[in-house]
Amino acid sequence: MADALKIGIAGLGTVGASLVRILQERHEALATTCGRAIEITAVTARDRNRDRGVDLSAMTWHDDALSLAETADIDVFVELMGGAGEPALSAVKAALSRGVHVVTANKALLAAHGIALAGLAEEHGALLNYEAAVAGGIPVIKALRESLTGNTISRVYGIMNGTCNYILTKMEKEGLSFEACLKEAQRLGYAEADPAFDIEGNDTAHKLSILTSLAFGTAIAADDIYLEGITNISIDDIHAAADLGYRIKLLGVAQRTDSGIEQRVHPTMVPLESVIAQVDGVTNAVAIESDILGELLMVGPGAGGNATASAVLGDIADIAKSRPGAQHVPAFGRPVTALLPYKQAQIQSHEGGYFIRLKVLDKTGVFASIATRMAENRISLESIVQHSKHPVETGEPQTIILVTHATTEESVRKAVAAIKSEGYLVGDPQVIRIERPKTA
Amino acid sequence: MADALKIGIAGLGTVGASLVRILQERHEALATTCGRAIEITAVTARDRNRDRGVDLSAMTWHDDALSLAETADIDVFVELMGGAGEPALSAVKAALSRGVHVVTANKALLAAHGIALAGLAEEHGALLNYEAAVAGGIPVIKALRESLTGNTISRVYGIMNGTCNYILTKMEKEGLSFEACLKEAQRLGYAEADPAFDIEGNDTAHKLSILTSLAFGTAIAADDIYLEGITNISIDDIHAAADLGYRIKLLGVAQRTDSGIEQRVHPTMVPLESVIAQVDGVTNAVAIESDILGELLMVGPGAGGNATASAVLGDIADIAKSRPGAQHVPAFGRPVTALLPYKQAQIQSHEGGYFIRLKVLDKTGVFASIATRMAENRISLESIVQHSKHPVETGEPQTIILVTHATTEESVRKAVAAIKSEGYLVGDPQVIRIERPKTA
Repeated sequence: MADALKIGIAGLGTVGASLVRILQERHEALATTCGRAIEITAVTARDRNRDRGVDLSAMTWHDDALSLAETADIDVFVELMGGAGEPALSAVKAALSRGVHVVTANKALLAAHGIALAGLAEEHGALLNYEAAVAGGIPVIKALRESLTGNTISRVYGIMNGTCNYILTKMEKEGLSFEACLKEAQRLGYAEADPAFDIEGNDTAHKLSILTSLAFGTAIAADDIYLEGITNISIDDIHAAADLGYRIKLLGVAQRTDSGIEQRVHPTMVPLESVIAQVDGVTNAVAIESDILGELLMVGPGAGGNATASAVLGDIADIAKSRPGAQHVPAFGRPVTALLPYKQAQIQSHEGGYFIRLKVLDKTGVFASIATRMAENRISLESIVQHSKHPVETGEPQTIILVTHATTEESVRKAVAAIKSEGYLVGDPQVIRIERPKTA
Repeated sequence: MADALKIGIAGLGTVGASLVRILQERHEALATTCGRAIEITAVTARDRNRDRGVDLSAMTWHDDALSLAETADIDVFVELMGGAGEPALSAVKAALSRGVHVVTANKALLAAHGIALAGLAEEHGALLNYEAAVAGGIPVIKALRESLTGNTISRVYGIMNGTCNYILTKMEKEGLSFEACLKEAQRLGYAEADPAFDIEGNDTAHKLSILTSLAFGTAIAADDIYLEGITNISIDDIHAAADLGYRIKLLGVAQRTDSGIEQRVHPTMVPLESVIAQVDGVTNAVAIESDILGELLMVGPGAGGNATASAVLGDIADIAKSRPGAQHVPAFGRPVTALLPYKQAQIQSHEGGYFIRLKVLDKTGVFASIATRMAENRISLESIVQHSKHPVETGEPQTIILVTHATTEESVRKAVAAIKSEGYLVGDPQVIRIERPKTA
């Protein structure tokens, strides 16, 4: 059997402690599978004295991650600290700079510095593995980086934030408000005390930027993502969607178009009978559409200490199975010098169907006016629904829901602006994009 | 850049021709991704003169696969001939015996000889990759063999035969009979002229036997699979299932139980709202339940020249990215000597819910008798439905449908036999097992 693979772990939170426990408990089985033992030789974390329920006595303790990365006797540096900046950034750089492989679950770090780190990895013959950074336990990085080699990818999209999916699922199933479901998510530990990063879509955007680079062979462009969170979604939208045969999900979508690459994170209507519409609660899902393989959808746990640890372990095992210096797996699918510049498509040129919910004064001619504004912008309608609570005209505001055939964001924005200027709207219109899976 | 990876392809049918075309058209892009070119240096097929729409002039033609495997100047032997026996078997053995890696899409070969071939691969330091052999383009082999390293797997199940799923989907959507849908599948090329291998479940069984070995680390036991096809499923079953909140799918299921491993292929009721229930038409899906990661479900194309070629290409690219002699990836997840013996659980001890449809004479006391026979076998019922076409007793046979809570196959068989002996049954009872995904 080959020499043991020596790993150092930086960060002993939920994921780190799970990983230590699993590596210890399954030492023999892993050695059999990998053809060599995996030994944790060094660890670091914020607090040396905290009881994590695991035995660290056989490992060298480092007071900081940089010292571990720079000096420990390790083959792999496992970064589980999180955060786009220090101390993770310098520690990962230090490890790669001396040819030590890096396994990380840190999406923020990769979204901000992924290409620079990939370059460093290539330069020093090290691997940079990060399966756990996107959609937790779902092996989407491996699918894009390995299984789909040779495919040209047209679209990647998915449910990549469990907090948002939990809230949207609960709103629909129990008829509760966004606020009530957010509170419940916080109570269960599915949402942070400050939930903005999840519910405004930033977390999904970080993950999407990594998938975009892998899928299209471009530089990471985490700042060029169109972003809408779910705070604006009401139970009325969810009910209206269901009536029309749709369900609302927060999707991250990266798509190749004639004018560049679209990266969008926003509430999205997906057909009720589609597979992804059935993905409930904190579960994640990622779909990849490619020209040779076709459509691949993967569904699984997107977060949690164990699921994340499993993905990290898979990355470590891949290194253990390869012999040192023996592999060529560029971090983002192709060498950094072969990555293409990222050309952003403007959201205005986005093409697709739209759901538009309008609250209007109950006046003669409103319907005709709306239809005219749509026609003027060459928007054809799949359906128009008026939900009236009152059988006869009462002067109370009415809700009108439009579902458009494929059109452009620009046309929709113009039509909605024109409708707004007519003076019969009550409150703001709600506009939700529709996304259709390629197959069923 | 490293030396080119030289491959020989045996079999130039739909998949083989797709593969040649893709390797030629995407030569540069693949070289960038893999860090070395992939060159087809040798080919063989049944008919040298057939026009396959691809240029074979740069390759050495071999009249038979064995000569190619034994003598060609290749690093990888790609076996796309199919069939459990010759000429595939000897050719693959010959390639492995001289340390040439093998990539194959041949499920029948692996089901029959997988472990022997894996042993040969290990002995000679070669890789045996077979992503395309199970569920076509879905990277389930990679997920089990790599991503889930360290996990203990409890159940693997899935829709692995597109023909059956197409027929069942069409029956439900269009209210047609099994025979009518089979004919349509044959017309569209989704079913063979002799469809028995697909519709009787044998194809699914081959694939399941490979997944079982990978999932549980056991020897392949393709002959120890409980098998029921879909020929017995009527449109009445499908409607009754829908009424009760279920959909019928042909599943292959491998499950660890206290008494051994269950391998079963049979029509299965899955909850309508589950993700796998939404997998329609020729699409495949495989779910893996494991202790660290949780549940992972993958959905994608299970057959077709391109999807299969994509999986084969992924396997070739994995070899191209590794340097010769530099990897340790046992074909079935652990070295052949570390594989456990397969211990078969008897179908009689299977535990789960059951759907039972009985056609009975319209006599007083029948309902009570059925309920009594169930109770005598300690079977508790989730629901009982009587579908009567007639509002009053007419003497016409009635249909009674039972859905049980979790019970054993043995109890159900005893109860059904007891009911049969009562003399009020018309025709044979229909019994369909219920399978529940772990999550939602």
